Amino acid sequence: MKEQQKILISGERLQSTLEKFANFGRTKNNGVTRLALSEEDRLARDHFCSCCKELGMSVEIDDLGNIYSTLAGIEDKPPLVIGSHLDSVKKGGRFDGVLGVVAGLEVARSLVENNIKPRIPLIITNITNEEGARFEPSMMASGILSGKFDKPTMLKKKDANGITFGEALKSIGYVGKEESRLKEAAAFLELHIEQGPILERESLSIGVVECVLGMVCYEIEVTGESDHAGTTPMDMRKDALFAANNLISEARQKLSALNRDLVFTIGRMNVLPNIHTVIPNKVVFSLEARHKEPSVMKEVEEIILGLKQSHANEGCEIRTEKLWDRSTVLFDEQICDLLEKSTKSLNYSYKRMDSGAGHDAQFLSSYIPTAMIFVPSINGKSHCEEELTTWEDCAKGVNVLLETVLSF
Amino acid sequence: MKEQQKILISGERLQSTLEKFANFGRTKNNGVTRLALSEEDRLARDHFCSCCKELGMSVEIDDLGNIYSTLAGIEDKPPLVIGSHLDSVKKGGRFDGVLGVVAGLEVARSLVENNIKPRIPLIITNITNEEGARFEPSMMASGILSGKFDKPTMLKKKDANGITFGEALKSIGYVGKEESRLKEAAAFLELHIEQGPILERESLSIGVVECVLGMVCYEIEVTGESDHAGTTPMDMRKDALFAANNLISEARQKLSALNRDLVFTIGRMNVLPNIHTVIPNKVVFSLEARHKEPSVMKEVEEIILGLKQSHANEGCEIRTEKLWDRSTVLFDEQICDLLEKSTKSLNYSYKRMDSGAGHDAQFLSSYIPTAMIFVPSINGKSHCEEELTTWEDCAKGVNVLLETVLSF
Repeated sequence: MKEQQKILISGERLQSTLEKFANFGRTKNNGVTRLALSEEDRLARDHFCSCCKELGMSVEIDDLGNIYSTLAGIEDKPPLVIGSHLDSVKKGGRFDGVLGVVAGLEVARSLVENNIKPRIPLIITNITNEEGARFEPSMMASGILSGKFDKPTMLKKKDANGITFGEALKSIGYVGKEESRLKEAAAFLELHIEQGPILERESLSIGVVECVLGMVCYEIEVTGESDHAGTTPMDMRKDALFAANNLISEARQKLSALNRDLVFTIGRMNVLPNIHTVIPNKVVFSLEARHKEPSVMKEVEEIILGLKQSHANEGCEIRTEKLWDRSTVLFDEQICDLLEKSTKSLNYSYKRMDSGAGHDAQFLSSYIPTAMIFVPSINGKSHCEEELTTWEDCAKGVNVLLETVLSF
Repeated sequence: MKEQQKILISGERLQSTLEKFANFGRTKNNGVTRLALSEEDRLARDHFCSCCKELGMSVEIDDLGNIYSTLAGIEDKPPLVIGSHLDSVKKGGRFDGVLGVVAGLEVARSLVENNIKPRIPLIITNITNEEGARFEPSMMASGILSGKFDKPTMLKKKDANGITFGEALKSIGYVGKEESRLKEAAAFLELHIEQGPILERESLSIGVVECVLGMVCYEIEVTGESDHAGTTPMDMRKDALFAANNLISEARQKLSALNRDLVFTIGRMNVLPNIHTVIPNKVVFSLEARHKEPSVMKEVEEIILGLKQSHANEGCEIRTEKLWDRSTVLFDEQICDLLEKSTKSLNYSYKRMDSGAGHDAQFLSSYIPTAMIFVPSINGKSHCEEELTTWEDCAKGVNVLLETVLSF
């Protein structure tokens, strides 16, 4: 059986484009600081727009600064949308976000150079402020697009210097029209680095992402009594740190036994008064957990809430407060199947997997059939200067997108 | 057997004097902020000097700002010295330190009003900067007096506003002569609040303090890897917080089993990067322990150093560093016996005990026969606005001092 010659993207051009974008905010150690709506972000946006215009694409900006570059289709129907975000965290990497935007650009370039006009319009999008590193919350613009966040509230969000999101958007000249917002679409495809070690561990090139895991984040506050470290006998203490230590052990033991796919993290912990000669009277820590199944998440919450009744509280009071949660977002089954089919047709190694991290795709999936493609992160690193994905894997991810566009 | 009528101090006068001193820096919640060499400290010093002069005492200041008020004795021999410190921590209490100075004043007043001239000179002293709350280290002046600290180095120590100890000393007008320093003395007696709950728990009024406990303070640094909390499977993490949690459990279990009188505290703990969605890559915590016996302290250090080889390190690296230590300081046996005899003769309930906290007396004991008297701290509280000792117990402590002076 003779196989048809595949149209592939240019790995070299993809690499040089990614390197070009990495210059907009490149750090000393080859990472990137390109905070949302910063001068670096503006330069990256400008460059993206000019690349698209060179290809003959029309460029529109909506009222949230989202960019939509359209390659006209044969039929004037709802478009196929490819995209991600150009902003980064402070001292982030050269791949997170930008890969998904540049991927769209490379797909469009490949279509144009092969004189292929897509059946339906192809839109490449850059979505504003995915990271939330300068203006919280993260996924701000996709949150507004999907009705999760309120625009007037978001416009007033301030960065560390007191500049509002609305002011910053104006200052870089990226305020467009509300009617340009992404509405109906045939599909939204986001290529992203995995930000975890699973694909690399299993020597796979492609992850077809079926869902974004549900998560819950609690804050646990332990209140004891501050006494002099030298003069208070051990049996007369209410040591908030020792109590917190017990609670962490207890929670860890129970959560570990619950489900092997559950991930849970105590990332933040503050001790008061935090003086070596004073018994701590307060310890506050976060406990967040992620899993696909609502039933598992329910058990997680029961375990966390049960800490209040722990017998190992050292006489301290324990308060738990849910900071937030989100339900698992299941991506579109048909789009996932299509991505898998494209991957298979290219003979790339792959698996279907979950995303532990949040992405714009999870919000857009509420009104557009959506799915994601992951490519491996070396050592699972992201949001740091060491973030790395091989050029080969980047190209494979973009080829899956191109193949999917062609099959649409 | 008819008992001789005891000469006692005036509890009312003692109380009103303590209340008067509490006005120098009184806080909203009836505590005191009287940092060393502050304007409040100057006012308290001035008042102390004028009270002493009113009694006909001569007042001398040494080059460290220490005040020595002398009530002449019948014989011109090395003096008996009573004292403590007038400085406080920020938002400290009305008793810590000032009680021991005002006690001396009250003893002198009682002698004068009873027309008793002591056999040897009686010196009441206020020692500069015991707390170290404005200028570190604590016990600075007694450290210089006893040759533990170097004066030129100490004079350069800066407060949070960049003012040096030397500059502050000049600015409040308390730079005297080096030849006025406390040298030879028959004894140094320091009355102090216990700063712990033992006397109150055992319903005792007086503690005859035999020693200041030896202590050691280590810093333990746990280094793991920061990864994404949502995307990193549990078995691929190097979680510095979970490792620290294991180490704390391990240390606690071993130290608890070591000796029932051992006190140990993890007062300070910092987590990095301290973001709820990032697995901590570094946790640094202090571990300090105090006990009278050098053999126990040796075992404590072995346990702490052994943490580096813990099997529960979660793949993290563990570094231990000794920040400082001090050996147990044993007070003068004869002076302790004398204080006990005085206490007994007054029919006060008492015990011989250790001091877990550090005091100027521990440095002065290196060249002067020294011991301390403790009076109960309600709920063991000190270095806070809630610090409280009953007026009755304050008076009892001063009566022990007076009785001891009389028996000298």
